[in-house]
Amino acid sequence: MTKTVQELADLLGGVVRGNGNHVVNGLAPLEAATADKITFLANPKYAAKVADTGAGAVLMAAGGESYGRNVIEVANPYLAFAKLLTLFYVQPHPVLGVAPEASVAPGAKLGTAVSIYPGAIIADGVTIGDRCVIHPGVVLYQGVTVGDDTVIHANAVVRERCRIGKRCVLQPGVVIGSDGFGYAPDGSGYYPIPQIGIVVLEDDVEVGANSCIDRAALEVTRVGRGTKLDNLVQLAHNCQIGEDCMIVSQVGISGSTKIGNHVTLAGQVGVAGHLSIGDNVMVGAQSGVPGSLAANAGYSGTPALPHKQWLKSMAVVAHLPELKKNVSALEKRIAELEAKLGSQ
Amino acid sequence: MTKTVQELADLLGGVVRGNGNHVVNGLAPLEAATADKITFLANPKYAAKVADTGAGAVLMAAGGESYGRNVIEVANPYLAFAKLLTLFYVQPHPVLGVAPEASVAPGAKLGTAVSIYPGAIIADGVTIGDRCVIHPGVVLYQGVTVGDDTVIHANAVVRERCRIGKRCVLQPGVVIGSDGFGYAPDGSGYYPIPQIGIVVLEDDVEVGANSCIDRAALEVTRVGRGTKLDNLVQLAHNCQIGEDCMIVSQVGISGSTKIGNHVTLAGQVGVAGHLSIGDNVMVGAQSGVPGSLAANAGYSGTPALPHKQWLKSMAVVAHLPELKKNVSALEKRIAELEAKLGSQ
Amino acid sequence: MTKTVQELADLLGGVVRGNGNHVVNGLAPLEAATADKITFLANPKYAAKVADTGAGAVLMAAGGESYGRNVIEVANPYLAFAKLLTLFYVQPHPVLGVAPEASVAPGAKLGTAVSIYPGAIIADGVTIGDRCVIHPGVVLYQGVTVGDDTVIHANAVVRERCRIGKRCVLQPGVVIGSDGFGYAPDGSGYYPIPQIGIVVLEDDVEVGANSCIDRAALEVTRVGRGTKLDNLVQLAHNCQIGEDCMIVSQVGISGSTKIGNHVTLAGQVGVAGHLSIGDNVMVGAQSGVPGSLAANAGYSGTPALPHKQWLKSMAVVAHLPELKKNVSALEKRIAELEAKLGSQ
Repeated sequence: MTKTVQELADLLGGVVRGNGNHVVNGLAPLEAATADKITFLANPKYAAKVADTGAGAVLMAAGGESYGRNVIEVANPYLAFAKLLTLFYVQPHPVLGVAPEASVAPGAKLGTAVSIYPGAIIADGVTIGDRCVIHPGVVLYQGVTVGDDTVIHANAVVRERCRIGKRCVLQPGVVIGSDGFGYAPDGSGYYPIPQIGIVVLEDDVEVGANSCIDRAALEVTRVGRGTKLDNLVQLAHNCQIGEDCMIVSQVGISGSTKIGNHVTLAGQVGVAGHLSIGDNVMVGAQSGVPGSLAANAGYSGTPALPHKQWLKSMAVVAHLPELKKNVSALEKRIAELEAKLGSQ
Repeated sequence: MTKTVQELADLLGGVVRGNGNHVVNGLAPLEAATADKITFLANPKYAAKVADTGAGAVLMAAGGESYGRNVIEVANPYLAFAKLLTLFYVQPHPVLGVAPEASVAPGAKLGTAVSIYPGAIIADGVTIGDRCVIHPGVVLYQGVTVGDDTVIHANAVVRERCRIGKRCVLQPGVVIGSDGFGYAPDGSGYYPIPQIGIVVLEDDVEVGANSCIDRAALEVTRVGRGTKLDNLVQLAHNCQIGEDCMIVSQVGISGSTKIGNHVTLAGQVGVAGHLSIGDNVMVGAQSGVPGSLAANAGYSGTPALPHKQWLKSMAVVAHLPELKKNVSALEKRIAELEAKLGSQ
Repeated sequence: MTKTVQELADLLGGVVRGNGNHVVNGLAPLEAATADKITFLANPKYAAKVADTGAGAVLMAAGGESYGRNVIEVANPYLAFAKLLTLFYVQPHPVLGVAPEASVAPGAKLGTAVSIYPGAIIADGVTIGDRCVIHPGVVLYQGVTVGDDTVIHANAVVRERCRIGKRCVLQPGVVIGSDGFGYAPDGSGYYPIPQIGIVVLEDDVEVGANSCIDRAALEVTRVGRGTKLDNLVQLAHNCQIGEDCMIVSQVGISGSTKIGNHVTLAGQVGVAGHLSIGDNVMVGAQSGVPGSLAANAGYSGTPALPHKQWLKSMAVVAHLPELKKNVSALEKRIAELEAKLGSQ
């Protein structure tokens, strides 16, 4: 595929400075790009590198120094770069239909232009939207629904009656709708509480490899539109996750916790159950959250503190032995003073 | 399904106050229940809500105020609620036999009334008990045994010779019997030590989605009767887990550690290898356990401390910068005192 | 299988003391071994047990007291034990060929003496080396290459174009080549950045059950020769892991981090992105690594400190409430001194 700089600018809603007729066929980093490639400057810190790039064109924010290069000015060069990556390198999945080695129950409803790979198992009562891609070994239990343009990668499992939105992506090994961890103590052991609810993933949700989302005990475990989960994440039963959240790898969220919109939980964070986390909260990696968190703030540590307070406490922790020694030294000096004064 | 209040009381071993002939057809929460539903009061804190519920009957502990409602007095209302959930909402799995799209080796022995779904792979020498349900994509390696009434969900794997008890549940993606992480340093790299032992899950064990239990190096990794594991848990080789334990999501237990009975490990806890954890221990979320723990106590933190001690230490950690400032102020005041006294 | 002590010594490059013609048929621990078994003494602490063992021979380091037993002196008794375990108990996998219930695309290239189990799904353009074993439910996407003598266990997934070296082992449920967690904020939500790179596992890499290694955004996520990953490990996109590393269970390494050779990360460690960890570093369990770490040292804690410093700080943390009390007591004594002096 080749495109002129002007064509790309039109596509991105950008403005050309320089030669709009220059032709490129792909992307490359600033340092490695040749004349047939377009590159991008996301970080103004590296603006001087534009002078030396061999690229045929540069994506940059408005007003940057072009050093005589062909430039497309865009509001968000990083986003524009991502969009051109898609344009140049991502081919639409071919429509494969239903492989003869797939097992599709007679009662399943399939949309148009689907691709169902060998070894996929689709139970009765499943509904799959248009243009979905269901990879090998995927198992969809009875009554599952999958929205249009969703991709489910190999060996992912969606248990009975759960609902996956449009344009979702489940990476390999994802488990949706496993039983919540709910048991009633019966004196000696534990009686399993039936988990009869479901999981709902709204549109544009993506779930990383081998992540697990438990079905609700009675109602719905919900992940809001646009939220992205990384690999090996655990969402317990009845969680309510807002829209456009970023839940990084190995995070665990306990049962019935409610997370707002635009929340970021960094890697390995743990959140206790029955809490409420406000909108736009950011929680630092490995933090443990034992209580609800107010919106629009950052937190870190176990138990989690406001981020700056945690940084200051940790700086002291690293030097606690000195602090202890200082206190002992003070004690000695005071004892000497007391002795002196007592003897006066 | 409909039941009279008296029928339910008989089933639960409870005592009716009010109209035992009243008929209900399901359960609902206190606030939402209508006359055809039974509800439950597990927490005496909410006793006043009984006055306002529209429910046809209420499960509660003996001696509670009935506000004129039909009541079933039971010893454990939460357990009774769980049992009625099962009664009203859980249907026994239909007996499907062996799907033609399953792959069952000729030497496998299947009990009566089993359900083997399409895409399940059962190797030679496997023994499966009566009424087991083996979901799509499950792989049972050679020589595995599965006890009666056990359910293995989609894409779970049990490697060679491991033994699963009766009434066990493996959620999707569980791995039982993977090789333990054992290597002998050979000077430059690592020589893999053959892991020739097995895993034994005793009766009534449940394992959460994508959890992993490694086979022993030589003998047995064992999970005791009634113990429940949540999702994404890691049990290393040669672990011995007692009975009726609760191992919450993302816990990791290192090799050869022995855990007593009725132990609770909260989410993301890590336990080092070759330790002994006593009966009835509770370890708080995200704690790291570097040494053995005495029975009948609670612990938290990394490294784990007795729970109350940890709480007190963490309260100070949150205010360490002030403590440090206080010490500096004291130092100054002492220096002044010393100067004064020196000059006298 | 039976072997003389001399035959075993020749195999191990060891030296016989005692009767080289004595015949053994397997291994057993010091305490349990009988005359037809060989045992080993890895830890000199237990040397006295050699006097009491019933074993027919003992592997030990040169110069140990033999107590009249037949002995094979070897440089590394633990390694020798591991090698004899392999000799006596590990049978080469029989060559099964391609099961009729496997799905192998016509364009896939298979080496000689492979075993492809029922339910394995091999896409077009896949290349599989000689003597590989591909277990049930494994999914190899288009263009994957697998080196000679590699074993891929049930339900593992390798996504498009990733390359697995020789003599690698993937435990069940492993995911190689899932999309990296990369999104460009677009003002309200997140635009997925195409992840068009791959994963390369070099020779002799082993990956534990349900671990995940994300494909690079543009180039290669690489795991160096001989490195071993335990279960439920997360490697994010663009990580570069050196040779002969030990990455223990539930470790998470963020994107673009570079790890040297012979690095050990203990269980549940988290490492931030874009860092560099030097050769021979050891990081203690559950540590959180926010910055690069110099080579040849040990670190612990969150945020990670040099190991000894962390130990000292944690010893103080456990007694912070006393420290705080001490400071308050000093404050009082100083106030009294000040009052006294002021009144003079």
